[in-house]
Amino acid sequence: MTDKKLILGMGLIDGYGGLHGAWRAPHVDPGTYADVDATVRHARAAERGKFAFLFTPDFPAVRADVEHSTISNLMDPLIQLAAVARETTNIGFVATGSTTFQEPFNTARQFKALDVMSHGRAGWNAVTTSDPAVAANYGRPVADRDERYQRAHEAIQIVQALWGSWQQDAWIKDQQANRFIDPSKLRPVNLQGEYLASRGPLGIPPSEQGQPVVFTAGGPSPHLLSIAGRYASGFIAEVWTIEQACAQRELVRNAARDAGRDPDEIKYIPGIMTTVAPTVREGLDRRLKYAGEVIEARLPHLGAILGIQIHPDRYDEPLTPEQLVSAHASPRDPRSSNALAVARQGWSPRDILAHGVIDFHPTVVGPGELHADHLQEWFEAGAADGFWVTPDIYEDGVDAFVDEVVPILQKRGLYPTEYPGTTLRANLGVPHQYGPDPRLTGAE
Amino acid sequence: MTDKKLILGMGLIDGYGGLHGAWRAPHVDPGTYADVDATVRHARAAERGKFAFLFTPDFPAVRADVEHSTISNLMDPLIQLAAVARETTNIGFVATGSTTFQEPFNTARQFKALDVMSHGRAGWNAVTTSDPAVAANYGRPVADRDERYQRAHEAIQIVQALWGSWQQDAWIKDQQANRFIDPSKLRPVNLQGEYLASRGPLGIPPSEQGQPVVFTAGGPSPHLLSIAGRYASGFIAEVWTIEQACAQRELVRNAARDAGRDPDEIKYIPGIMTTVAPTVREGLDRRLKYAGEVIEARLPHLGAILGIQIHPDRYDEPLTPEQLVSAHASPRDPRSSNALAVARQGWSPRDILAHGVIDFHPTVVGPGELHADHLQEWFEAGAADGFWVTPDIYEDGVDAFVDEVVPILQKRGLYPTEYPGTTLRANLGVPHQYGPDPRLTGAE
Ligand SMILES: Cc1cc2nc3c(=O)[nH]c(=O)nc-3n(C[C@H](O)[C@H](O)[C@H](O)COP(=O)(O)O)c2cc1C
Ligand SMILES: Cc1cc2nc3c(=O)[nH]c(=O)nc-3n(C[C@H](O)[C@H](O)[C@H](O)COP(=O)(O)O)c2cc1C
Repeated sequence: MTDKKLILGMGLIDGYGGLHGAWRAPHVDPGTYADVDATVRHARAAERGKFAFLFTPDFPAVRADVEHSTISNLMDPLIQLAAVARETTNIGFVATGSTTFQEPFNTARQFKALDVMSHGRAGWNAVTTSDPAVAANYGRPVADRDERYQRAHEAIQIVQALWGSWQQDAWIKDQQANRFIDPSKLRPVNLQGEYLASRGPLGIPPSEQGQPVVFTAGGPSPHLLSIAGRYASGFIAEVWTIEQACAQRELVRNAARDAGRDPDEIKYIPGIMTTVAPTVREGLDRRLKYAGEVIEARLPHLGAILGIQIHPDRYDEPLTPEQLVSAHASPRDPRSSNALAVARQGWSPRDILAHGVIDFHPTVVGPGELHADHLQEWFEAGAADGFWVTPDIYEDGVDAFVDEVVPILQKRGLYPTEYPGTTLRANLGVPHQYGPDPRLTGAE
Repeated sequence: MTDKKLILGMGLIDGYGGLHGAWRAPHVDPGTYADVDATVRHARAAERGKFAFLFTPDFPAVRADVEHSTISNLMDPLIQLAAVARETTNIGFVATGSTTFQEPFNTARQFKALDVMSHGRAGWNAVTTSDPAVAANYGRPVADRDERYQRAHEAIQIVQALWGSWQQDAWIKDQQANRFIDPSKLRPVNLQGEYLASRGPLGIPPSEQGQPVVFTAGGPSPHLLSIAGRYASGFIAEVWTIEQACAQRELVRNAARDAGRDPDEIKYIPGIMTTVAPTVREGLDRRLKYAGEVIEARLPHLGAILGIQIHPDRYDEPLTPEQLVSAHASPRDPRSSNALAVARQGWSPRDILAHGVIDFHPTVVGPGELHADHLQEWFEAGAADGFWVTPDIYEDGVDAFVDEVVPILQKRGLYPTEYPGTTLRANLGVPHQYGPDPRLTGAE
């Protein structure tokens, strides 16, 4: 290993946490969703742990199951992050914004304003928005993948061109000479694509990091890889095994190579969910307490994932030796190998599920060492440049991670003890960029 | 007079002030445009003066003359106001947003998030955006007025319906009973217009004032009046004389009557620009110091406004008795009667212009009493329910207004000594509203 450090981001989903039922914990105010004081508190806790960024996924549509669960989204990512920006100093913001349902000029403007206001800490997670429920809120159907991604290329090119349209030395602000701006250095972009266009310029100066950092998020489809390879400095992923992650990370890095970039310029960041507790048992109990019903509902599916039959009478007994022999991981479901590994440790079906084996991301439950071991193993295997962490319950789960996991990572030399800098680019270790990447412009 | 009080808003243009050249004043940091600390400082100064709201006009396009003047716009209204919201407690926000170039779902979401975050202090100045330079930033031409205003009706109806789609009693958040939301009380809006559509619901609960207050801004065209009359609680205007204001205010009130509303529910708010100084002479000198060149350039036009010839040799002498006799106000330029009144006080052409007589709004220059007299005269004549004030230089001009003008208005019983409440609706004295106005729905 070199002295490269792993990067941590925190997923800010909705104010409660990654654990279904987090909102019901007695130490959680059930009104947290509408309480920006809480967003700020959680952001500051992450900043205490030297997290490089907060990541706000965004699927602005109300799902069917809100009776028992939460809105699973911030009220509005940029509005809430603007508040957080003023009350933090180093942590970055990777806010999801749609290339389909937001006007590129507005995206360029709001993200760059946040970047200037936060002194260089903004990032844009550019997604095409493929969820029909979200599209319906904009009165439109989901376009096919070709159209969505053609539009995404145009949107990102327009946004980056607008960001660079106020040239870095344009702002003279010489009071004596009565020259505010050099107008020849605010240049229109005059971009005209198939779906989108903009004249510009955008009237916002550079930030301390030049312009916001572009991320993208998703699976490794050729469409998304061509976005990632050309424009992104970060790739937000969802993978369950080291093997899957290594393969996907290589695809992402190759996409950058194909676009003429150094693959180290794009950071591959898979998700992880965490329950930090003194013992695994206490962690499982915490999870069963708040997500017990969801786990109960998933019990009938565990057998299928492991390729065995599990009788409801035995949900609270370890699998039998016979079951363990015939159980096997399905090559079609990457979560099944985690489920099998946990089963082999002797846990009951209910406890296997309480380990989060069929959650959105790999889940670690237990003391700080277990978390540090997991992150280290993935990181050293080349499966990740860092992780976006969703704690089970923000209200105490961020602090628990910061107090119990971060110091171990630091002691092991895997994680910075101080922020590398005050900008998101510095925290990620990605190069300065202003305007479009000049290596791409030629390739057009 | 009843005990009705006048309302004050402050126009937040760009961080410097209404005076051309404000950015060059030695006590002003020329980098203020990108400094949100300054936005917060100016907002707090206005809040000390019990201003009901900050108003952010928005024309996001870089004008041709930026070499010597400023960007004349905030970097981004909502991002900057989100920061201000956290650092103030009572002042409201009337942020301009385009019905043409912003997706209604995004408008609904961002303004309501700001409303919740500020505990009920957000307002939306809904404009159709008729500036071709702005439209070009979105890659489109300006549509004709019929189309723009049809779209505006649809946008405002969709936004207000989305605001009401999370019903006021929908959020149960009962941890014991495991019921977060009553899903039957988050209702889709399913609106389909000619240009715009949305399914909804919007996943944001009510604020302390229900939902943001709708404003509009412009001249009294039938198109705009039909927007104002149906939806607006505030009308931002630009008028130069009491007569013009009285007539325009009556048109606005009649539009509300026509829509079946009580005309007192819409507040008519013309603009005013201010230079507060111990004497008129000192005020004029302050204005000449920073805007001297602009005034110099306008001198050749003053004669035309007054219907007389003024020789360049006499720009610094009072008009002659003969000139004063033949000078007259042009019925086609409402600014000319102010110019004539100032000329008759014996000022030279340069000083007449230094009075701001051909600025964007009526301008008052001099001690606090003069300002208070102007506001009182208009208010008592029924020319305004309040004013949006643009101080000459924010850095000291807001404090000067708050210290020198506000106490006089308070002593005269014209202006509140304490905030009427903590919401924008309370500060304006307009009724609670949630969702569309039920009186209009029937009229559709
Ligand atoms: C980890 C992860 C995070 C994602 N975050 C978002 C998001 O915040 N908003 C969104 O609209 N889509 C998000 N997506 C969806 C992807 O951008 C992509 O649209 C999806 O994987 C469907 O693929 P397609 O676009 O190639 O059809 C996410 C996907 C993954 C795997
Ligand atoms: C006082 C005042 C403030 C205005 N503020 C804005 C603004 O912030 N943004 C904008 O696009 N238009 C603004 N307008 C323009 C009007 O909304 C309107 O579009 C304009 O008067 C042209 O009229 P029309 O829309 O009927 O063609 C403003 C107009 C006035 C008089």
